This record gives sequence, C-alpha cells and structure tokens, in this order.
Amino acid sequence: MKPYAEMTKEELASEYEQMKQIYHKYQGMELNLNMARGKPCREQLDLSMDMMNVLTSDADLSCADGTDCRNYGVLDGIEEAKELMGQMMENDPANIIVYGNSSLNVMYDTVSRAYTHGIMGNTPWCKLDRVKFLCPVPGYDRHFGITEYFGIDMIPVPMSETGPDMDMVEKLVAEDESIKGIWCVPKYSNPQGYCYSDETVRRFARLRPAARDFRIFWDNAYGVHHLYEDPEKQIHIIEILAECKKAGNPDMVYKFASTSKITFPGSGISALATSENNLVDIKNQLKHQTIGHDKVNQLRHVRFFSNGYTVQEHMMKHAAILRPKFEAVEEIFEKELGGLGIATWTRPLGGYFISFDACSGTARQIVDKAKKAGVTLTGAGATWPYHKDPNDSNIRIAPSYPPLEDLRTAATLFTVCVRMVTAGNMLNKMNTVEV
Amino acid sequence: MKPYAEMTKEELASEYEQMKQIYHKYQGMELNLNMARGKPCREQLDLSMDMMNVLTSDADLSCADGTDCRNYGVLDGIEEAKELMGQMMENDPANIIVYGNSSLNVMYDTVSRAYTHGIMGNTPWCKLDRVKFLCPVPGYDRHFGITEYFGIDMIPVPMSETGPDMDMVEKLVAEDESIKGIWCVPKYSNPQGYCYSDETVRRFARLRPAARDFRIFWDNAYGVHHLYEDPEKQIHIIEILAECKKAGNPDMVYKFASTSKITFPGSGISALATSENNLVDIKNQLKHQTIGHDKVNQLRHVRFFSNGYTVQEHMMKHAAILRPKFEAVEEIFEKELGGLGIATWTRPLGGYFISFDACSGTARQIVDKAKKAGVTLTGAGATWPYHKDPNDSNIRIAPSYPPLEDLRTAATLFTVCVRMVTAGNMLNKMNTVEV
Repeated sequence: MKPYAEMTKEELASEYEQMKQIYHKYQGMELNLNMARGKPCREQLDLSMDMMNVLTSDADLSCADGTDCRNYGVLDGIEEAKELMGQMMENDPANIIVYGNSSLNVMYDTVSRAYTHGIMGNTPWCKLDRVKFLCPVPGYDRHFGITEYFGIDMIPVPMSETGPDMDMVEKLVAEDESIKGIWCVPKYSNPQGYCYSDETVRRFARLRPAARDFRIFWDNAYGVHHLYEDPEKQIHIIEILAECKKAGNPDMVYKFASTSKITFPGSGISALATSENNLVDIKNQLKHQTIGHDKVNQLRHVRFFSNGYTVQEHMMKHAAILRPKFEAVEEIFEKELGGLGIATWTRPLGGYFISFDACSGTARQIVDKAKKAGVTLTGAGATWPYHKDPNDSNIRIAPSYPPLEDLRTAATLFTVCVRMVTAGNMLNKMNTVEV
Repeated sequence: MKPYAEMTKEELASEYEQMKQIYHKYQGMELNLNMARGKPCREQLDLSMDMMNVLTSDADLSCADGTDCRNYGVLDGIEEAKELMGQMMENDPANIIVYGNSSLNVMYDTVSRAYTHGIMGNTPWCKLDRVKFLCPVPGYDRHFGITEYFGIDMIPVPMSETGPDMDMVEKLVAEDESIKGIWCVPKYSNPQGYCYSDETVRRFARLRPAARDFRIFWDNAYGVHHLYEDPEKQIHIIEILAECKKAGNPDMVYKFASTSKITFPGSGISALATSENNLVDIKNQLKHQTIGHDKVNQLRHVRFFSNGYTVQEHMMKHAAILRPKFEAVEEIFEKELGGLGIATWTRPLGGYFISFDACSGTARQIVDKAKKAGVTLTGAGATWPYHKDPNDSNIRIAPSYPPLEDLRTAATLFTVCVRMVTAGNMLNKMNTVEV
C-alpha cells in the first residue's frame, strides 16, 4: 500500500469503503475487549500466588528487631521492607517510608499535605493565589487528575525519547515561583515507554527553581518492569536522589514506587524515597494521619521476595507474559498501518503502554468507533491535562490485560478504525475543498 | 484507712513516708511496663492467626460477583466486605465505604477533604477565618491531634456517664456557624468506657447546627468490644445514621469503625458509614486519591468471619482475655485507694480504657513518678485538647497490653504514686499555710 497522502480521491474512497466493510464485520462479532488501563492479566497475578503461603498461622510474624507486625506501631514501615524497597528503588533504606497499598495515594497525600500545610515551612499552597505544575505530555491521566482536583494550573511540556523538553523546564521553573512541581515517569514512561536520558536526569538534578518548595514528583512506577531479558534491552536510568544530592539540591525530589505491578495491584506495598529533611517534614504530618501502614503485608512481601534480586527474577516471568502482547500489537500496527503515513507509535522496552499518534483531529473519532465495535481504549485526550489534547491525536494503548488472541483482534480492529476514520476525514476535506 | 481529708498532719506524713518507702522498693525492681496505649496483647493477636490460612495459594480470590480481588478496581470496597462491616456497624451495606487498614486515616482524610474542598459544596475550611470542633473531654488524643494539626479551634465539652453535655452541644452548634464538627466515641468511650444514652443519641440526631456543613464524627471504635458475655452487661446504643434520617438530618453524621482491635491492629480493614449524599461527595474525591483499597485483605476478613455473628463470638474470646485485666486493675484501685477520697475511676463494661481522676494538680506528677519507676502511662493531659487538662487530674489507664501479673504490679505501683504524690502535695499545702 502506498501512503494516504499519495492516494487519489478514488483510491482513498475505495480504502474507506473497504475499511467500513471490515468494520461492520467486527461490529457483528459483538466483541467486549478492553485495552484501556494498565492492568496485569490473570496469568501475571498467578505468578504471585505463592506469596499467599508465606505467612500462614504457624508463621512468626515478627521482624528481625522483634517488632510484632500484627500490632500497632512503626509509622514509616518495618526495616526489612525498607531494605527490600531500597534495593528495588536503588535507595538507602534510611531514605524510605514504606506506605500502604497505593503509590497514587501517597502522591495524592503528598500534594494534599503541601496544599494544607506547605512543604518544609513554606506557605501552604491553599494560601497562595496560584500554584502551577509542569506536566510532560502525553502523560499519566491520574497524575493530572490529582493536580486538577487541587485547582493547580497545569502547563504541558513536550516529551521526546530522552524525556521532557529540558530547555523549557529549566526556563519555566527558574522564572516562575508559582511553579511548585513537575510530574515525571522517568523510566518506561506512561504512555510512551520512553526513558529519561542521563543528560535529562542530570539537568533535572541541577534545576534552579524560583520556588523553594518546588519538588520533582518522580513516579518510578516501572523501575523494574522490563520487557526483555537481554541486559542490552534493559534500560537503566541515573538514580535521582543521589544525583540531586550531588548537585546541591538534596531536598528537590519525591520518588515513588510500589509493587502494584509486581505482586497484586491494590494489595501490594508502596514507598516514598526522599531526603532526610523531607522525611522529617512528612513524618510530622503522617503521625497525625495514621499509626502505621499494614506491616503484615509488608512482611508478606519481604518473606516472598527476600531481596531485590528475587524481584528481578520475578519480573522476568512478567516479561515473558507481557512481551508477546507488546510484540503482537507492534506487529499488527506495522502490518496494517506501516507505510501509510497516517500514524506513529512507540516500541517500548518496558512499562505498560504504547503511545499511538494518529493524524490530527482523529483520536476521539477512532476511540469512539472502536468503542462502538466493542473495544474499549483509554479515552482520547486522557494523556493531556484537563483531557485536552490540542491535536486530538494521541491514544494510549494498554496491551497487558486481554488474552493474546483477544488482543490481536482488538489491535486489528483498532487499525481498521484508524484507517477508516483517517480516510473518511481526508475524503471529507477533499469534498469540502471541492464545494 | 480513713479519708485523707480527715487525717492529721502527722497521719498524712506517716502515710507519705510509707508510700515513699514502697515506691523506692519498686524503683529497685527496674520495671519496664507499659499501660499507655490501647494495644491488644499477644494472646489477643493469636486469636486471629487462623485468618492467615483462609487465603492460601489454592484459594479463589474472586468475589461472588466475579471481581478478581488481586487486580485493580472497586473504589468503595468489595460487596462482601460492605456486608460484613454493615452487620458489625448495624448499617445497610449501601451506606458503607470499606477502606484500608486504619479508621484514624479515614478520619484524618475526612477532615483534610473538608479542609481542601469543603463538604457537599460548602466553602472549603481552608478558606474560612475560623473553624471550630467540639471535643467531649476527657477524650481521645488522636482525634484532638487531627483537629489541632489543621488549626481547628477545639472547644471542650464535659462528658458524663450518659455522654457529652447535650445542653451545651445544642446551644453551641445552634449559635456558632464556625463549629463544623464534634468528635464522638459513643460506645465504651475513650477513655471512660461510657456509653451514650438513648436520649443523648436522639438529641445528637436532632441537632440544629448553624453550619450546613456541620458533621458528627461518630467513631464507633468499640462497637462490638464488650468485656462481658452477659447480655445485660453488653451495652447497645441507638444506631445514629437511622436516627439522623428519622430526625430529618440524614447527612449530619460520618460513622467510623474498623477491625483493628478485632483481628490485627494495622492489618485490619476500616469503614465509613454515611448517607448517600455524603457518599457521592466522598467518592468524588476518593477517585483522585486511589484506585481502591486492599481487596485481598477485605476478602481475607470476609472469609475468616463469614458474618457479623462470628465477629460477636470472636469478640467473646477477646473479652475472656481482657476482662480479668480490667477487673484486676479495678480490684487493686479499690483495695489501695478505696475510701481515701483522693481519686475516682470508671468501671467500663467494654472498650480499652479506664478513666482515672486524681486530685486536682497531681496527674502530671503521678505519671512522672510512675515513669521514673518504670511504668509508662498515657501522658497526663493527653485526654484534653492541646494536652491541657485544666485540673491536671485525668489519667487514662490502658490495661490491655501487659500480661496479667505485670499489670498487677503496674497498677499497684500506680496507686502508690497516687498516694505518695497526693499526700506529699497536701503536706506541702499545710506547710505553706503554716508559713
């Protein structure tokens, strides 16, 4: 097939008709498939079922230091869990607080605390006329959801394969004291699967923000979530806390992680790594909010994994399930859309998503058509602040959840929708021009 | 022994010297005992160890409706857990959100949400010049800790055996629009073990607050925590949600509970029961904070207990462990302090605490003396907002944690401290008067 741009009106009309026919066939299949969210599939969840056996009634639920995990106490998490998360996150256990089941909750609470009480003695954000966050785009909708909920102005910053546009980030944070934060998914980014380059991380660590309470919200959600065993294909990024310290900005970053996509989403453990000053600041609030998080579940994770190396091994089992799914989607995209010049997509080496860019002004229609044929995608616009993609072109593809065969069907239908909508729109424009 | 008030100076001096001698003997024993917090003891925790066996690797972790508890989703808790908590709390499952491991966390978040976003469309508390809470005293220090942290003015309201002074509550909330809430522990109150009378609950439900966003924070922490099997000694209080609805105030109450002192503190499940309007309001925020709480742990609790009746049976095992401890303390208090006219204390039928009132101006000294002999008590003043007990008389006694023999030792030493400090203070006053 040749690129759409080189097609005559007749060729385009024939392509459109052909796609419409195929689309109608799919509609007749009454599909009910979901590529919307980054949910692990059943086989992935099964990988952690043995974790349910490590703490049975004859187990000693005590820590090495004698703490009975069943009782109250230990605000910042048991020592063993700090060590495990520390190995996973490449941080000193002394810099870690282990939380409950959701790092999103930790991020929300971090913003909320800054809003109600301020960061390290600075003015609470609720007392300021204006608070802004930088939002690399396309990005993670739930991040944007938090800042939108708190009435924080969100400024989009373009992403590239090496990370956010650092010229823009450096300039904005240096100029504007009302910019208090930036949302980052530095490794296998949501939705692109991009990894911040060494230069990007170093420039982040060396930011000179006007606001003393500016913080980098470093959501290392996919730190160990490689898709390939080959070490060449396992991306490593520079550890941000150490780099910030080196650059004389020790307090500038909050780093988040969890085991949600390692063991069970919703029943894992989460953690925050940050400087001692930030830890003191945070614990001063946390002690009013809770007596402590679920230590039995922390112990369960520690006993299941023993150490960070076992986590790496475990992640390779996830990769073996996920990799064929990502490859199937990429193969279908290449086969059905390659060379048409109407779409681009990423080919991640890890994480949970593929970022797909269709022609301007088609994303909403494509998602809508797919939905009407039984395939649910992440809503168009979701990857932008306020759900407003100015180009209406970006669509996040989540290949993890459906079984492989269903995924092939869904991906193929998706390409049909892309071609049908794109051809249709081009024809409309031609007709409009004729009129 | 006769009352101190009837003693001559010589008799008092002899009593003082005798107590001092006994105190010094205790000091020589190098005790390290703790009656400070309402922590279950090891034997109580052992009661729930079988819960660790209900979800092993061969278990089906699905709900009746097919939800895989291992994966993301279900913001407000699985249906089965709503039913279990509903039976425990005497509420319709439809009125319940099941949360994570800590009801204190839910209370904090409830205040925080009101502070940042307001309740049901009312002005966020952070935008108001003044926000006040009523605080029945003596009361629970962690409640007061939350409101103090948010800069909320706390107004003490005296407690009696039937609950807070309702004349005062009714008057204050009707007059002052800045009063936005009241902290209540309606059943086996912390620290007295008092239970709100039917009249008290009915008057609560019929409050006519000036503030539309006034809410009763009804912490039903000890709803099923009876000390006695005899039904006559198991107090029942009127269910507040139903009563508020009946009184035309359906949205006026947030009711909290958890399994912290039923299964494992820190690894239980918690819940909020409230009206549909409040639920909509809360979920509108909660969806930004989390994707859902730990459903596996919810399922674990459901499979362990099956229903509310099993919870009741389970609580009788707790009672069998706790009752002798409460009775031992009461017996020692009666034996060592009875008839001296220098102290009063409560005799709860449930809950976790005994409230002890010494003579004015002695509580700090007593707690300090006990500490120096190796017995840690809840800090004097802790039961009052801002840690300021105007009489310096109230001390919270927590008999649950120490083994029975240790508890006897601690309680006896405590009475020695009470007598030594009181006699010493009375002698000092006499000497001052003489001068």
